[in-house]
Amino acid sequence: MMEFASRADEFRPSPVRAVFEVARDPSVVSLAGGNPDLSVLPADAVGDVASLLLRGRAGEILQYGSGAGVDGLRELVVKLMARGGSAVTGADILPTTGSQAGLDLVTKLYCNPGDVIVAEGPTYVGALGVFGAYEVDVQHVEMDHDGMQPEAVAQALDELAAQGKRVPFVYVIPSFQNPTGVTMPEERRRELVEVCAQRDVMIVEDDPYALLSFDRSDPRPSMHGMAPEHVIHLGSFSKIFAPGLRVGWMAAPPEVRGRLQIAAESVVIHPSNLAQSLVTSWVGSEHWEPALDRAVELYKERWTAMEEALTEYMPDSASWTTPSGGFFTWVTADELLGKDVLAEAVANGVVLVPGSACYMDGRESNAARLAFSGVAPARIREGVRRFAEVLGSL
Amino acid sequence: MMEFASRADEFRPSPVRAVFEVARDPSVVSLAGGNPDLSVLPADAVGDVASLLLRGRAGEILQYGSGAGVDGLRELVVKLMARGGSAVTGADILPTTGSQAGLDLVTKLYCNPGDVIVAEGPTYVGALGVFGAYEVDVQHVEMDHDGMQPEAVAQALDELAAQGKRVPFVYVIPSFQNPTGVTMPEERRRELVEVCAQRDVMIVEDDPYALLSFDRSDPRPSMHGMAPEHVIHLGSFSKIFAPGLRVGWMAAPPEVRGRLQIAAESVVIHPSNLAQSLVTSWVGSEHWEPALDRAVELYKERWTAMEEALTEYMPDSASWTTPSGGFFTWVTADELLGKDVLAEAVANGVVLVPGSACYMDGRESNAARLAFSGVAPARIREGVRRFAEVLGSL
Repeated sequence: MMEFASRADEFRPSPVRAVFEVARDPSVVSLAGGNPDLSVLPADAVGDVASLLLRGRAGEILQYGSGAGVDGLRELVVKLMARGGSAVTGADILPTTGSQAGLDLVTKLYCNPGDVIVAEGPTYVGALGVFGAYEVDVQHVEMDHDGMQPEAVAQALDELAAQGKRVPFVYVIPSFQNPTGVTMPEERRRELVEVCAQRDVMIVEDDPYALLSFDRSDPRPSMHGMAPEHVIHLGSFSKIFAPGLRVGWMAAPPEVRGRLQIAAESVVIHPSNLAQSLVTSWVGSEHWEPALDRAVELYKERWTAMEEALTEYMPDSASWTTPSGGFFTWVTADELLGKDVLAEAVANGVVLVPGSACYMDGRESNAARLAFSGVAPARIREGVRRFAEVLGSL
Repeated sequence: MMEFASRADEFRPSPVRAVFEVARDPSVVSLAGGNPDLSVLPADAVGDVASLLLRGRAGEILQYGSGAGVDGLRELVVKLMARGGSAVTGADILPTTGSQAGLDLVTKLYCNPGDVIVAEGPTYVGALGVFGAYEVDVQHVEMDHDGMQPEAVAQALDELAAQGKRVPFVYVIPSFQNPTGVTMPEERRRELVEVCAQRDVMIVEDDPYALLSFDRSDPRPSMHGMAPEHVIHLGSFSKIFAPGLRVGWMAAPPEVRGRLQIAAESVVIHPSNLAQSLVTSWVGSEHWEPALDRAVELYKERWTAMEEALTEYMPDSASWTTPSGGFFTWVTADELLGKDVLAEAVANGVVLVPGSACYMDGRESNAARLAFSGVAPARIREGVRRFAEVLGSL
């Protein structure tokens, strides 16, 4: 049997994907996946939009399309990004097969094996899968309740430079971060941009949750808007419409966008025209924002239910972050140390993301990510109770 | 500005994609892209299927799905592959975001930088884009009117082994090859399998055209069916239904399929559920085969029109392959040497794929790929006439 490439040793299954089938078992409470609530979507209306698109434009939607995306999608993204203060034009935008595919392309374009990416500690498990596949290491930097600390990033970048390490970019999820739920204030974002620009290091800003503030306020200013020449922005329709369609986007300086488009066309030719067209029609319609408002109202109620359950069931030693939007909280409890948390949780009828999965080195962790976005309050309560049993506090 | 990774030097734009916008100009005759004819598809019926899917299963189709694919797709592929003699089960199948994305995953899994892939000379331009992005070289082997020559493959493999080169796989398009249109007979396929199995080299069988025989006969036996443990099979719905959806599949031994699924999930999580579901419903319906029959009838008529035009307009020195199915012919004429064929063709109102683009080293070529699949006979005639003008024979 032919041996695999050396990079294959670094392929890592996502713990969310690994428990995907388990999480479909109705007797299991899944606090693992960051699923949006889709009950707010009128299925008939979405079906009508898809039908109209195919009846009117089948020859275009079913045929090969442009790597630059279907008509209208880039203009839609321009409007969405303006909410975060980014003055992009359509020429800066590249549609992707989901924002993780965008991160894959950026990593492919910028990273040689042995390079180091500076990222939050903890960070998104899916990003670690991307980085691993390119044999790139990750230096995690400390966070506090305001997210990534710019001075810690500066220190990490300077130390890595002193070691002769190449650091192509800093990877950061500034709004309602995955997995911690915390959000970087505007001032800290400006500091981070300055730290990276001074050192000629790009920022990859992964921002799928920006529009999901519980108080429905505008998103915090994006780092891309502050310094578009230094920041590649990754956006997604997965959390604000429908992840099953697999449509996201990237914004990058035009010459970088051109290289990314060539790299993208070499893999997928273009994202699915039908999925792109449905996103363009739906998110551009009057249906979209009211449905998103209802969804965020649900996320807020669910977080309230989770917070109450955590307060009731967790041991006194436990603590957790207090998200003001998004899908996640990060629960810390020393009772988690030394356990195979995921296996014990599954055995007790609840799934979640163990903290160790959110670090490239898989270090022992006293924390776990709990998602509240896709589960009804009563189930959240039961899921937290089952989790508390794993911790031995019940 | 941060420098790109070393692999970025090897990113290559596809000549088909590069002329995508030019080819949309109605005054230009495009013989460049291998577009299926979609006029045979009843748009209303396709729209109805999509609408029914979303009305009935929106919560499943719009939500995150399984990397193993939507229900029913793998069973459909099992039936399709049985036509080529492959006795696969659903566990062998992985859906992809188009078969080129499958080739990307196989290359990612098997190839280190500096490895060499043995492929037909000429081969599919899109495959060269995939291989380049992984810093892999290609050794082209000679073809004749029966396709790749197994003894030439054996010689290339032995020479590369003697040079200490690692050859993870042989890449071959056995049916109505892209770009030459030729098809490997069954006996030659068996010989190629034996040559590769003896040397412990995988075969990657890229077979999107297998069902497009002009005489509507069953596909030639697939190499995957002959030796499933030595062959990774790439399939596509792009040529038999709709390329704009971006859905294909791979078949591989289960342990390889598992690694490929992890690699795929790291990039796209899963292919678009809506696109997968529409493919599953349409190709599984009674609509599909009659529409495909009509499409192949068109391809046959168009090839006849192209053959007549080539006979009428080409210089006496020119020759071309005679496909018995698929989308392409390969025209050879020494008048093409020393010209920037694509630029001169575009200037004369016709686009095509220059032969040099079908070799990794971009060698000078006296040939070009002409696609007849997506263009009406009168336009084909005009396109060939314009091409003949570029050759100076009119």
